[in-house]
Amino acid sequence: MGAGLVGSLLALYLARRGYSVDVYERRPDIRRAGAVGGRSINLALSDRGWKALAGVGLTDEVRRVALPMTHRVMHAVDGTLTEQPYGLNGEAIYSVSRGGLNQTLLELCAREPRIRLHFEQQATHVDLATGTVALHDLTQHPPRAYELPTARLIGTDGAYSAIRSAMLKTERFDYSQDYEDYGYKELTIAPGPDGAWQLAPDALHIWPRGQYMMIALPNLDGSFTCTLFFPYEGPDSFAALTTPAAVQAFFERVMPDAVPLMPELTEDFFRNPTGSLVTMRCFPWSHGGHTLLIGDAAHAVVPFYGQGMNAGFEDCRILNELLDALGDADAAWPQVLHTFERRRKPDADAIAQLALDNFVEMRDKVADPRFLLRKKVEARLAKDHPGWWLPLYSQVTFSPDTPYHEALANGRRQDQLMSRVLPLIQTEADYDTPAVQEAIQAEIRLTAESLS
Amino acid sequence: MGAGLVGSLLALYLARRGYSVDVYERRPDIRRAGAVGGRSINLALSDRGWKALAGVGLTDEVRRVALPMTHRVMHAVDGTLTEQPYGLNGEAIYSVSRGGLNQTLLELCAREPRIRLHFEQQATHVDLATGTVALHDLTQHPPRAYELPTARLIGTDGAYSAIRSAMLKTERFDYSQDYEDYGYKELTIAPGPDGAWQLAPDALHIWPRGQYMMIALPNLDGSFTCTLFFPYEGPDSFAALTTPAAVQAFFERVMPDAVPLMPELTEDFFRNPTGSLVTMRCFPWSHGGHTLLIGDAAHAVVPFYGQGMNAGFEDCRILNELLDALGDADAAWPQVLHTFERRRKPDADAIAQLALDNFVEMRDKVADPRFLLRKKVEARLAKDHPGWWLPLYSQVTFSPDTPYHEALANGRRQDQLMSRVLPLIQTEADYDTPAVQEAIQAEIRLTAESLS
Repeated sequence: MGAGLVGSLLALYLARRGYSVDVYERRPDIRRAGAVGGRSINLALSDRGWKALAGVGLTDEVRRVALPMTHRVMHAVDGTLTEQPYGLNGEAIYSVSRGGLNQTLLELCAREPRIRLHFEQQATHVDLATGTVALHDLTQHPPRAYELPTARLIGTDGAYSAIRSAMLKTERFDYSQDYEDYGYKELTIAPGPDGAWQLAPDALHIWPRGQYMMIALPNLDGSFTCTLFFPYEGPDSFAALTTPAAVQAFFERVMPDAVPLMPELTEDFFRNPTGSLVTMRCFPWSHGGHTLLIGDAAHAVVPFYGQGMNAGFEDCRILNELLDALGDADAAWPQVLHTFERRRKPDADAIAQLALDNFVEMRDKVADPRFLLRKKVEARLAKDHPGWWLPLYSQVTFSPDTPYHEALANGRRQDQLMSRVLPLIQTEADYDTPAVQEAIQAEIRLTAESLS
Repeated sequence: MGAGLVGSLLALYLARRGYSVDVYERRPDIRRAGAVGGRSINLALSDRGWKALAGVGLTDEVRRVALPMTHRVMHAVDGTLTEQPYGLNGEAIYSVSRGGLNQTLLELCAREPRIRLHFEQQATHVDLATGTVALHDLTQHPPRAYELPTARLIGTDGAYSAIRSAMLKTERFDYSQDYEDYGYKELTIAPGPDGAWQLAPDALHIWPRGQYMMIALPNLDGSFTCTLFFPYEGPDSFAALTTPAAVQAFFERVMPDAVPLMPELTEDFFRNPTGSLVTMRCFPWSHGGHTLLIGDAAHAVVPFYGQGMNAGFEDCRILNELLDALGDADAAWPQVLHTFERRRKPDADAIAQLALDNFVEMRDKVADPRFLLRKKVEARLAKDHPGWWLPLYSQVTFSPDTPYHEALANGRRQDQLMSRVLPLIQTEADYDTPAVQEAIQAEIRLTAESLS
């Protein structure tokens, strides 16, 4: 159920194992309808996503439409720009269009004889005991109701999953949905007169303003998709900006360098919907040995670590690996589902927490010189002690073999260590002083002792 | 929506304010159908509940069918009994039958000209924008579907509320449901041959066994309703007890003194369903200024503090007080609902946490002599310093004017204080030693300083 990014990638994985796959999607075929604008945060594809795409041979095809971003550029109110590299060695995350990537995946699905795609089919009820799904065929007027028996049912139907709604009513199903007091609004930086990018296209741009922020990711056509993350209520908030003049004045006050690049600012602001930000957690992810939730249906996160899609793609890769290990026999599936949910749940919880933590980092800390100094110290530590120190961001983003829950635990330990070492450092040059080097050696000994 | 305990009490409150109230209930009329056995934990009515019942003049009527329990009696494996009073001055909690109390409330509703009761009416859908409820009249065959417009809609439809299900799909509605790894099973201690109670009827009996427990509350007919709280899985668990012989052997091993009193033990065990234990939290509790959740629909808790019904009754009393304060005018209602949810949410969260904490106390700590010593020290402190120390249990159970969230915060402070004083005390007599008295005086000074 669901032909979004995770649903279409999983269909490819399963078809290539020999399964016959029917994919049902509520929305029209995005290949014909075009992407729905105004409500999709640009996606940052990183190594976990690439690794999962490689598993079905998609690396080259996606690389052609992905724009590498090797660093953050922070825009201060006075227009000063500050850079911070993402990786230690020029690694990049990649700006991709959600709609474009989904179309690419669906085109591959359509070429796969074992996959049948069914659009405008809305699941209205799920009988988990039998695996029967009641659907409405929305191509008929009035919609035609029918029932679909399934041998195995996989919910790739996103944060508002219909399959999960059915599981919500079963005994002992743990569930939570937690909304932020922030919404988001998609805005646009236009291409320059010659179709060139008006900001550096190899960076993710951030206007960090403490309690809120705007970000911008490059598109292939020379534009940038901007997203304003903004409180619903308060002095600077959606509730306070009710007229075009107020919006214009607000942006000129807090992001003056962006305003000349955004000719449609006030039109975008009032035309585009305000999206909400939610973390959804649940467990178990499977039911009866035949039904499974994966991707956002199982673990929807806020977008601030750029890992939602990557985590969903990783789900597909890991499910495929478990089928390799445990087999495709009917009798093996209950164990596959059970192993999958037990293995992945700690990682889903970890990336949910990391994403929440990263909002504070992006909207506030990146504007703090001490934070940027810490990033430089971390880079030095990683260079001098490569087996001992890898920055948390690199573990999450560029280390697809490190499970998220290990990255989170490592990051917590690094925070403690930094709280002891950083007070000794006022400038990057202090890193080389004997006092700091001794403190670092002491920490390395401590780590070795705690491991032995 | 919902004619359970909270729905019927709230209907009485509202009718006496002059409102015309229609109450819809999915189940048949309990006054005719009789209580559904085998799945209701006995209820312990305490001061918050009494205070709310007094608000509609129900004290005497309920007192007649309520059995006071002034203390806990702990049953050790070897049959040794230990007592622990609930209050400082003989205060009691009261064992009442859920079904009996519900019938009493419904009989009063039926006598109230402004209340109309509608049974076997199932809400199938709620349109929150208009306040229209789609219902099925289950008295018709097949059920007749109809729509009910409402001016104000109050969900008193319990932990699995249909009103809340509709709110779950609205933007920015926070929600969680968390199940325990424990289920419960209702069992029975029979009346004696002469219809007399076979255990002390003025106590709540506990068989604390560390990872699980059984409790027993007295009924008017000489029987006790027992509830076994037991892990779903593990060595001692529902999963491990699959035959009558295994159940019999288990009870003879771990609760030998109870077995002779339970002639229907194995029949009860396999006939009665295994109930689940869930904590449900959500926010907001209101929608559009016309729809409100109260009682379990807004905040379902596990039963270990005996406060679920009491908290729901307190909701009714507080909503009534807010209507007193803010008025019954149509224009006042949105503010009443908003004020109600903001004021009660911290209390609902607090009692949810207290109830979870109390499971560990009941199944494990009450069997620990150090715990019983602490209770005695607390009683001494309360007697010697009445303005300074009131045991947490008394604050929650016997102090209806102390909000739950204050009781929880006070309890946390008391825990810290006890962790400093208790190590000095080995027996109750140590309480009077100069060292302990000095330590207590130091704590009293600390409290005074933190307040000034």
